Amino acid sequence: MSETDPGFLAAVEEARQGFTEGGVPIGACLVSKDGKILGRGHNMRVQKGSATLHGEISALENSGRLPALAYAGATMYTTLSPCDMCTGACILYKIARVVIGENKTFVGGEEYLKARGVEVVVLENAECIGLMTRFIEEKPHVWNEDIGEQ
Amino acid sequence: MSETDPGFLAAVEEARQGFTEGGVPIGACLVSKDGKILGRGHNMRVQKGSATLHGEISALENSGRLPALAYAGATMYTTLSPCDMCTGACILYKIARVVIGENKTFVGGEEYLKARGVEVVVLENAECIGLMTRFIEEKPHVWNEDIGEQ
Repeated sequence: MSETDPGFLAAVEEARQGFTEGGVPIGACLVSKDGKILGRGHNMRVQKGSATLHGEISALENSGRLPALAYAGATMYTTLSPCDMCTGACILYKIARVVIGENKTFVGGEEYLKARGVEVVVLENAECIGLMTRFIEEKPHVWNEDIGEQ
Repeated sequence: MSETDPGFLAAVEEARQGFTEGGVPIGACLVSKDGKILGRGHNMRVQKGSATLHGEISALENSGRLPALAYAGATMYTTLSPCDMCTGACILYKIARVVIGENKTFVGGEEYLKARGVEVVVLENAECIGLMTRFIEEKPHVWNEDIGEQ
């Protein structure tokens, strides 16, 4: 699991696109056990007025309806440590591994993922940290809204 | 918290509608601290080919973008014990209370909700049990897909 994995590169592309659109710059990409990209997406709070389309939820949604077997051994690449909702979504579908771009700007449910048997890898990618740092500085109210903080 | 709460009646209406549509018959309704319905919805796996629009996620999505303060003291009414994803969504937005129609046909993240400080009330409502029992008997493959089981 590294910064050159196609799934991670796709997640970062999604985050960049979200930033360009003026949204929350978090992207994700779901990759099957055999390396196929099942779906990718980015946070749509600003773009769609959505309270639930975080990066990982968008990637799952864009993967469409799948039987449980399709998620077996899958990896969720996400540019930021997953919030409690996205943590729960990965557990629901028994995703085997969550690869996280960075957890410097936010720490989500990493410990709970591990406790539920999910492998967690943190890359501390410089571009992911840079995108989130700039976003939080520029739009702190949008970020607080996205993580349910006042 | 009882079976005559407007929020619970709305959640059951949503579940009924989901059943009528041929979908997963689970509904939810988010009610603010002062008793206002913020949003309601039902599972859209079949109707929209959605892997993420469970009842509670639909209710949150249909509530639109809200600041954290809007969720303070709120109650999520849901006709079925919430899965790990929906459990996490309630924790993300610091929803104060989850009122559950039934947990006879499925038990989700109730203990984790309590561990994270969320009040949990289970009503064991006969109509909710009946809708889910009939659905699981008629469409076990759709149900297994919805909860990530093979």
